[in-house]
Amino acid sequence: MTTDFRSELLASGLLVGTGVDGLYGRSGTFEKVVRGIDDLVTAAGADQHASVLHFPAVIPRLVLERSGYVRSFPDLLGSVSIFQGGDDLHAELLERLARGANWAELLTPSDVVLCSAACHPLYPLCSGRLAPGGRRFEVFGHCFRHEPSLDPLRMQAFRMHEFVYVGDPDGAVAHRDLWLERAVDLLSEIGLAVEVAVANDPFFGRAGRLLAVSQRSDTLKCEIVCNIHPDAEPTAIASANYHLDHFGMAFGIESANGDAAHTACVGFGVERVALALLKTHGLEPDKWPPRVRSCLWP
Amino acid sequence: MTTDFRSELLASGLLVGTGVDGLYGRSGTFEKVVRGIDDLVTAAGADQHASVLHFPAVIPRLVLERSGYVRSFPDLLGSVSIFQGGDDLHAELLERLARGANWAELLTPSDVVLCSAACHPLYPLCSGRLAPGGRRFEVFGHCFRHEPSLDPLRMQAFRMHEFVYVGDPDGAVAHRDLWLERAVDLLSEIGLAVEVAVANDPFFGRAGRLLAVSQRSDTLKCEIVCNIHPDAEPTAIASANYHLDHFGMAFGIESANGDAAHTACVGFGVERVALALLKTHGLEPDKWPPRVRSCLWP
Repeated sequence: MTTDFRSELLASGLLVGTGVDGLYGRSGTFEKVVRGIDDLVTAAGADQHASVLHFPAVIPRLVLERSGYVRSFPDLLGSVSIFQGGDDLHAELLERLARGANWAELLTPSDVVLCSAACHPLYPLCSGRLAPGGRRFEVFGHCFRHEPSLDPLRMQAFRMHEFVYVGDPDGAVAHRDLWLERAVDLLSEIGLAVEVAVANDPFFGRAGRLLAVSQRSDTLKCEIVCNIHPDAEPTAIASANYHLDHFGMAFGIESANGDAAHTACVGFGVERVALALLKTHGLEPDKWPPRVRSCLWP
Repeated sequence: MTTDFRSELLASGLLVGTGVDGLYGRSGTFEKVVRGIDDLVTAAGADQHASVLHFPAVIPRLVLERSGYVRSFPDLLGSVSIFQGGDDLHAELLERLARGANWAELLTPSDVVLCSAACHPLYPLCSGRLAPGGRRFEVFGHCFRHEPSLDPLRMQAFRMHEFVYVGDPDGAVAHRDLWLERAVDLLSEIGLAVEVAVANDPFFGRAGRLLAVSQRSDTLKCEIVCNIHPDAEPTAIASANYHLDHFGMAFGIESANGDAAHTACVGFGVERVALALLKTHGLEPDKWPPRVRSCLWP
């Protein structure tokens, strides 16, 4: 099922295979849909007076280290290595490359890593004491997850568009709840059949199973899912998350009263929303229902 | 000088420092400028009937290996490593992380690397025999170069917007020449004082110095430079390049007559053009000259 949709996407040229599972070139038409989704999400948050931040695909290593990502999702992370040496090490690199040996082992870990989630690089920028009421941000990020798959919805490189709240517990819960409702409305308005599901992140290993259970029982993560592959589990295309004081503690962010800040975010998986639209309305956006087109490209 | 402009950009919030030199968050205003530049470049190539491709920030390792990048620019590349192991290796990773030791050494090189230049992932997709006249592509890419710097024009993560020709030698030279002229016109139209300069890539090491000399003497690389930092060398904000049959040979691309294809590209350094505009017209795009604004946001 998943591969049928993938074949259609590749045949139409909307996605272009690169030879690595989960890594695609995208057509101009695909990106027109992405731009429409981004603009729609931005418009939905116009009342938030959020500071807008776009992050690149690489972020400081310190963010990954402090965020807890290495503990919770080691299997998904991407770390960037660089060449540090002179002509001699370079000669060895080329010699290994020529005989098909592992040349990348000769590289050195750098001070950057691939972005794990759009909002992660935001938190260190918020260190210190917040003003009363906290702050809101609109964040655009390019994320990486090492999970090679033939399911086109499971890309290794993808974009997330988020609205993030940093402040006190009540504000964080209210942000999560407000955006869960808004996200459902927004995605329904463009014709997607979505449902809300209590979910957990794919925490790694033995200890991770306990984290997953507690995340579910505290309903910290709500996903908005859409049934894209018939006969398969529905896929999350957005999520609303309450992180308690996890990032406040990790990055030294204090709410106005001096307690560790609580944070919450809504994240739209931009490629996944685009693919849900293509699956629902067909592979030719120019022929989508007028109501959907006028939402995306007013 | 370079740090004065950087301080202004940071103070205005257009760029946000991340703690790693050459790595920035970007404001919504900065991205509005970027979108305007992208749309202007797209419009300038409307007659090219180019296939549009957007690539993510990570690309197949094979592209870096075959393109010659490991040979020519080892010091600039970024290679992605991943975690492959179970609970035991994870425990060692966390133990190292806890005591501030090098945990990333325990990772394994993956089959992806950071994108070196926007057009590089395109070439393997062109393998085989081309139709007469060759093909044209419009390519958007997210690039990485490991060159940490306080000069805001020298980012580690940045975007390139290219028009690429793949075909025969005459077509490649014509593409390079056409776009050199168009790029100068386009950049002049938005009020940038630009000049054309014969240039060379920063090839690595002893052997690289010879490559640089020959690239210059054959005028394979023409840069469009803008004087952004007073009292410093002008900065390249775009370039037009003729690669001879370098990529044709590397990726098995044949022109219609069976010879190795020749390729040429024009590349706009999108962040650099944005910064040149901000330096030239001031840090508030809403107050730029009406003629410039109507070009960027018609």
